[in-house]
Amino acid sequence: MGHSGMHYSLASRELIADMVETVASAHQLDGLVLLTNCDKITPGMLMAAGRLDIPSIVVTAGPMSSGHYKGRRLNLTSDTFEAVGKFKKGLIKKEELDDLEMCACPGAGSCQGMYTANTMACITESLGMSLTGCATALAVSAKKRRIAFESGRRIVELVQKNVTPRKIMTMKAFENAIMVDLALGGSTNTVLHIPAIAHDAGLRLPLEAFDRLSKRTPHITDMLPGGKNYLEDLDYAGGIPAVLKRLGKMLNNAATVNGRTIHQIAREAEIFDTDVIRSLDRAHHTEGGIAVLKGNLAPEGAVVKQSAVSAKMMKFEGTAIVFDSEEAAMKAILGSRVTAGHVVIVRYEGPKGGPGMREMLSPTAAIAGMGLSESVALITDGRFSGGTRGPCIGHVSPEAMEGGPIALVENGDRISIDIAKRKIDVILSDQEMAKRRKAWKKPLPKITRGYLSRYAKLVSSAGDGAIMR
Amino acid sequence: MGHSGMHYSLASRELIADMVETVASAHQLDGLVLLTNCDKITPGMLMAAGRLDIPSIVVTAGPMSSGHYKGRRLNLTSDTFEAVGKFKKGLIKKEELDDLEMCACPGAGSCQGMYTANTMACITESLGMSLTGCATALAVSAKKRRIAFESGRRIVELVQKNVTPRKIMTMKAFENAIMVDLALGGSTNTVLHIPAIAHDAGLRLPLEAFDRLSKRTPHITDMLPGGKNYLEDLDYAGGIPAVLKRLGKMLNNAATVNGRTIHQIAREAEIFDTDVIRSLDRAHHTEGGIAVLKGNLAPEGAVVKQSAVSAKMMKFEGTAIVFDSEEAAMKAILGSRVTAGHVVIVRYEGPKGGPGMREMLSPTAAIAGMGLSESVALITDGRFSGGTRGPCIGHVSPEAMEGGPIALVENGDRISIDIAKRKIDVILSDQEMAKRRKAWKKPLPKITRGYLSRYAKLVSSAGDGAIMR
Amino acid sequence: MGHSGMHYSLASRELIADMVETVASAHQLDGLVLLTNCDKITPGMLMAAGRLDIPSIVVTAGPMSSGHYKGRRLNLTSDTFEAVGKFKKGLIKKEELDDLEMCACPGAGSCQGMYTANTMACITESLGMSLTGCATALAVSAKKRRIAFESGRRIVELVQKNVTPRKIMTMKAFENAIMVDLALGGSTNTVLHIPAIAHDAGLRLPLEAFDRLSKRTPHITDMLPGGKNYLEDLDYAGGIPAVLKRLGKMLNNAATVNGRTIHQIAREAEIFDTDVIRSLDRAHHTEGGIAVLKGNLAPEGAVVKQSAVSAKMMKFEGTAIVFDSEEAAMKAILGSRVTAGHVVIVRYEGPKGGPGMREMLSPTAAIAGMGLSESVALITDGRFSGGTRGPCIGHVSPEAMEGGPIALVENGDRISIDIAKRKIDVILSDQEMAKRRKAWKKPLPKITRGYLSRYAKLVSSAGDGAIMR
Amino acid sequence: MGHSGMHYSLASRELIADMVETVASAHQLDGLVLLTNCDKITPGMLMAAGRLDIPSIVVTAGPMSSGHYKGRRLNLTSDTFEAVGKFKKGLIKKEELDDLEMCACPGAGSCQGMYTANTMACITESLGMSLTGCATALAVSAKKRRIAFESGRRIVELVQKNVTPRKIMTMKAFENAIMVDLALGGSTNTVLHIPAIAHDAGLRLPLEAFDRLSKRTPHITDMLPGGKNYLEDLDYAGGIPAVLKRLGKMLNNAATVNGRTIHQIAREAEIFDTDVIRSLDRAHHTEGGIAVLKGNLAPEGAVVKQSAVSAKMMKFEGTAIVFDSEEAAMKAILGSRVTAGHVVIVRYEGPKGGPGMREMLSPTAAIAGMGLSESVALITDGRFSGGTRGPCIGHVSPEAMEGGPIALVENGDRISIDIAKRKIDVILSDQEMAKRRKAWKKPLPKITRGYLSRYAKLVSSAGDGAIMR
Repeated sequence: MGHSGMHYSLASRELIADMVETVASAHQLDGLVLLTNCDKITPGMLMAAGRLDIPSIVVTAGPMSSGHYKGRRLNLTSDTFEAVGKFKKGLIKKEELDDLEMCACPGAGSCQGMYTANTMACITESLGMSLTGCATALAVSAKKRRIAFESGRRIVELVQKNVTPRKIMTMKAFENAIMVDLALGGSTNTVLHIPAIAHDAGLRLPLEAFDRLSKRTPHITDMLPGGKNYLEDLDYAGGIPAVLKRLGKMLNNAATVNGRTIHQIAREAEIFDTDVIRSLDRAHHTEGGIAVLKGNLAPEGAVVKQSAVSAKMMKFEGTAIVFDSEEAAMKAILGSRVTAGHVVIVRYEGPKGGPGMREMLSPTAAIAGMGLSESVALITDGRFSGGTRGPCIGHVSPEAMEGGPIALVENGDRISIDIAKRKIDVILSDQEMAKRRKAWKKPLPKITRGYLSRYAKLVSSAGDGAIMR
Repeated sequence: MGHSGMHYSLASRELIADMVETVASAHQLDGLVLLTNCDKITPGMLMAAGRLDIPSIVVTAGPMSSGHYKGRRLNLTSDTFEAVGKFKKGLIKKEELDDLEMCACPGAGSCQGMYTANTMACITESLGMSLTGCATALAVSAKKRRIAFESGRRIVELVQKNVTPRKIMTMKAFENAIMVDLALGGSTNTVLHIPAIAHDAGLRLPLEAFDRLSKRTPHITDMLPGGKNYLEDLDYAGGIPAVLKRLGKMLNNAATVNGRTIHQIAREAEIFDTDVIRSLDRAHHTEGGIAVLKGNLAPEGAVVKQSAVSAKMMKFEGTAIVFDSEEAAMKAILGSRVTAGHVVIVRYEGPKGGPGMREMLSPTAAIAGMGLSESVALITDGRFSGGTRGPCIGHVSPEAMEGGPIALVENGDRISIDIAKRKIDVILSDQEMAKRRKAWKKPLPKITRGYLSRYAKLVSSAGDGAIMR
Repeated sequence: MGHSGMHYSLASRELIADMVETVASAHQLDGLVLLTNCDKITPGMLMAAGRLDIPSIVVTAGPMSSGHYKGRRLNLTSDTFEAVGKFKKGLIKKEELDDLEMCACPGAGSCQGMYTANTMACITESLGMSLTGCATALAVSAKKRRIAFESGRRIVELVQKNVTPRKIMTMKAFENAIMVDLALGGSTNTVLHIPAIAHDAGLRLPLEAFDRLSKRTPHITDMLPGGKNYLEDLDYAGGIPAVLKRLGKMLNNAATVNGRTIHQIAREAEIFDTDVIRSLDRAHHTEGGIAVLKGNLAPEGAVVKQSAVSAKMMKFEGTAIVFDSEEAAMKAILGSRVTAGHVVIVRYEGPKGGPGMREMLSPTAAIAGMGLSESVALITDGRFSGGTRGPCIGHVSPEAMEGGPIALVENGDRISIDIAKRKIDVILSDQEMAKRRKAWKKPLPKITRGYLSRYAKLVSSAGDGAIMR
Repeated sequence: MGHSGMHYSLASRELIADMVETVASAHQLDGLVLLTNCDKITPGMLMAAGRLDIPSIVVTAGPMSSGHYKGRRLNLTSDTFEAVGKFKKGLIKKEELDDLEMCACPGAGSCQGMYTANTMACITESLGMSLTGCATALAVSAKKRRIAFESGRRIVELVQKNVTPRKIMTMKAFENAIMVDLALGGSTNTVLHIPAIAHDAGLRLPLEAFDRLSKRTPHITDMLPGGKNYLEDLDYAGGIPAVLKRLGKMLNNAATVNGRTIHQIAREAEIFDTDVIRSLDRAHHTEGGIAVLKGNLAPEGAVVKQSAVSAKMMKFEGTAIVFDSEEAAMKAILGSRVTAGHVVIVRYEGPKGGPGMREMLSPTAAIAGMGLSESVALITDGRFSGGTRGPCIGHVSPEAMEGGPIALVENGDRISIDIAKRKIDVILSDQEMAKRRKAWKKPLPKITRGYLSRYAKLVSSAGDGAIMR
């Protein structure tokens, strides 16, 4: 993070899928136990499972335990970022920072909150592709080892019965996974990954599905980064089976690699902490976190985590201030050129244009840091980190590099956003848009090396899951 | 446990020491990083370090994390024993027992309470033979790996400076270790191990030292098995350095393998939970747990964990009922032949006689189970588990197999115990004792195979640390 | 081998390069020690090293020891194939076959002869990208471990001095590598790999270079599969340094990752077996093994291992018999439809058409098996295994799938081959060719799954190294 | 070697046995697969197997491959010793020595000749305690891994059928093992180990058995160190089964852990190199190598490797020159105080006296180096390395430390040796002996540390296998 390596992040998902496809095909494997943990590995492996359609079980390695430091509990993401901030301001010493970092990260595992890695693990279990309890079992726990061992035993039965991924990863299963994602308040990155997995399983899962399911799925947990609970709390409270139990009949019945169906698993589950996993009528929000906006600025859609937007900013009109890269936007924000009433446009950061659709972590953090969260919106064809908060709309499709309307916006244009109505528009006539489109010239790519240059050539739009075709 | 393998438990300590002595001598090693965790390995390795006197650092592998099951915290010892009990009574199903066992034991590490393994780890750090923080750092933690790595780096410096174990493990250091042991309420097994380690470091540490230090060291933690806290609680509360800070100037200053002294470590420590590690004036008991009794029944001493004895039983006179093995005693107790007013003698269970000085776990649990803790005492030349409670006096020396007075007691003799006065006697005239002694015949050994038969031949008395000579 | 997984073989080379590029870029590594052994991994990793141009050392894992069975020496390729044949004919029992297979493969390592894996290892050392002695050090040897350890130490120095791959893999170094390849009689697959590595190092290495260097580089070893020696013989005879010594001033001086130049390494080398590594004047052949043919059938070139062609077949004219897949050709050969005087054309097996440019192992073995090696030639846009013998011309470019002339040949056309003159033609007028070209229709791809379908879309011609662009 | 660590060598055998006994008993194991390779580990583990008498299979890790250096084959023992000698004389450079050492030791495994480790492995297979082919399968070979894997599968069957070591290691099996040892010309250390193993299997195997079997067992291989062949040659020639085939009906039939008997294994074996494993009528010597001498100097026996004694020295009378330690003897030899006609006595080097019965490698090498092999004999209560040659008589029992007659010899006494008649005597009257015995005083032990001091206290005489009792 924080360097050019970030261009490779999303792009590595396709490579991982390709590698699994290649190794499994070249050796004509009969079945797969897929060992994974971090953000891109899990969707990449699920994509390969769908492509190959040979019996497969996923074992996600599990979250890290919570950290402990001077009597309080820590997580490796927000607590270390905060400590780095304090250190830079001279509030703490280097030794204390080092100590805190080490304590925040007490052992193996994915980040302790509901960031992308753990969200994807929860989705995998909800899809039916992991054994029950896998998603939240801690990386250092004997429980995780037992699940891994049992997965090895179980794959043999799946091979014998020819239970392949496309029999598990049906459209109904994807809907379940999205509902669990929404109930947990997961990362917006799943809007990229779930359609890509569905695609490789032979299904088309349009962006609209997230919006539709979001309207009826309540948000019933309060997980880090937005909330206060750690993954270990979710695990001790009953894990994904307990969440399934809460959602109950809202979920489709569907097969899983366990041999038991989603409804059976939900029925047999127990909830051990009713605050960590709330009942539907005590939900934190009655709708799920994700909304899909459309309009003349994003004819193929854009994504916003509405649960992170304040009431005041749900409807907003402002003046465009336009940047062709994350770095240019950062410079302007830090230079105080962005002010109340602005709609910041960061473009040419999409899958093709980035290339690799970088996460706009720094600009969103900087806007919040300047106290502009209630008066400035940000729109990009790039994506966000799980920790982003405020009126930040990403995944704008088609992206600028493909000549999408976001490429045509100019400083001073008026932009109108209405999240409740799912609308995002630039206030311009069709003629003006057509004129500007005629004048648009595709810029040179930012990076041209090897794999990344081929990636930029073949990747589809964000609305389509950023798949290489 | 629960079979003849238990005879090898204490005896394995000598073998471990011999093996380290042999490998290090045969290869003429310059220094040692000793990796250990469980009850006998830690003292065995410290004994070897003292014998060899080449630079050495001990890395104890660390305690297990606490278990979590259906919303409550578990430990692998009391909670699983209790669940086995419930299962036998038909209160819970096999599946629940299995689940609970697996949850009680959530990963690698030594038992979660202050049993012998962790007590020995705390003693090792207090002795100065581990790096700071080692004793309580969890087995699955990155902290433990960092300490292990750092120990590898540090041993090179110790070799360069020729800082050998006998420069660290001085009499002052042993006194510190005993005081920490008493402050923590550690296992009575340390009364065997500490003198043995001292012996191999060229020092004589008499049993009386425990008694003397016990009188002035308050018991300031409330750890499992007697209390409620887990080792991870002690770690998060500040670990051994925090305990050292509490004891402060009571401790001798002494060198450690860190290069910093005990007083420096204590000074720089912080206490993060003042209930887990109490101040001296809020101690759970003003004296340490261990008392050493003497008298005509135990001329060379006997050991009792006085903090586990009720006020009523601190002074007691009763009628002897005598057994020549643990199994015979068990049969009588379960057959209700032991009644209020009895003093149960279990003999020929000492180091030589056991051989191997078995732990009288079953008889003490059975007496408690029959509700006789307030009216029956138990005296043995064997030893106890860390979990034993009630008026249980062990380590009686000389042992029966050596013809000690305990071999001469007969059913119906009167026995007098006065813990406050540190007395233990059989009410018999010297003439009667002499007569019986004349009539006594040494029985045949119970086990004669290979190593164990040589062990029985060479082992010293319990009061002397049960060392092979 | 022998199933559809073979389509992934060559294609995996690009994925390996992409993966190294991605991991090294994403983590911003300072240097690389690349651990490899088999056919595609070595070129894939060298390609990545060239692309990234960060300091890199390659450690090839090394050849297998020779096998021993009933008093004779075995190799895992020809000896097991032969035994399988005997078993099928009922000459030996299943038990003997199993035994022989196990003995032929006595441990870890790449095949014992100069097949592609070992050829690539020898090329890597000759290029200067491995430490001296690496290519031939056996996989199970302590020598290989020492080289691996030393490579770890050395990479730090290379990083400190910023000695990057493009400073080592210069055009002069590639010429050296090709000369060593020719002197050893290596696999024709290097004609694909070396240009691809050169490309990613920023150089253009045309097919003609092989032809030019082949004319002046004598073939001085007699290695399996063509000859009798094992890689361990080459190692004990002095390895690559001894071969460099033989070639002496023919080689360009060039830097290596050792810090010593190729000329220094050659000078300091010793030859311990003058039959295994002959002097130039006692060469097995005065020319290197590889010839590049051109003509109206292969305007961009075709490749033949001339050292494996009998004198009689060096000039040949025959009648075309045309197949659009390996399977169709096999069926015809086994059905005796191929007879003396035929030129067998197997097309749509190129990089795009295969896809993946399969090895025509079965058809060439079948032709030899039918006794037609002296009267039938084979021409393909696919490639061959290292073990192929006879007038077999592959790598025809452009390939059929790109509409190359090989796609236009019809049964009954006359084909003329003159290896000495480097000519390959179909005897047809330009008008006829133009007419046929007009009528040609591109067929549907054979495989359309995921990665392979993208590979077919982007791969360049064989003459160009079959690189994805 | 060459330092005080050598005192621990033989003593470690008992510790290894004790450790296996302890771990297996403490955990109540059902069966054992014992992984071993070097000199003391193999007998130590076999001793434990006999003591415990639970189903057991031994997997000896196997010999090292032969080394290759500058065109010749090397072994790590004689070739490196020779090179060290050359280096000390300035004949070769440090670099060449280093290179040669590394080449002589090309990977994992026990020394390449018939030294103690490999002799014990061959004995183990001949005893029936390893799977067929185990003893000679090279350490780095896939064959060894297959045998190890198969041993794991096989132990389960042995447990199910309760085939315990005492059913395999019968007196007949021990006789077989001794005959194979003699046929191979194995190390004299087996005279210590085989009786010790037999003892722990509940049998008494007197020293005389070696002598008796030696008289009728021909020496049919020519293995390093005495001869020219490497263990890999023996393996390729057919290994132990081929040796069993040669011995044929001389061997007792006996069960093995394979399930097949020794006679079956011999019958099914093949001999692939009739020079490496000769037929009985082409034996190198018609008697086995080992002779047991008795007389007033060694009432309980002494051992000589007669095949290493020249014809001239088979009968010898000389003048005693007496030393109380190896070091003292070395000083005198190097100081030229030992001359033709001397019988060098090195005493107080027995099991108790050494303690640990060191190998008299230096004095025997020095006598040979001074050209005295044909005119000087050496007698000791210590032992020899496998490489010792000349009239060297060891294992004299009782040893000096026990007050054996060897303790009573004085400078100038006449000593008479007659190997053919198995006699060894000091020419003194019984009265003189009695007088000297009266005057003898037991000296203080040389080493008193921990384990070694207990070892010296409990170890039995060499003639009894140097077992701790």
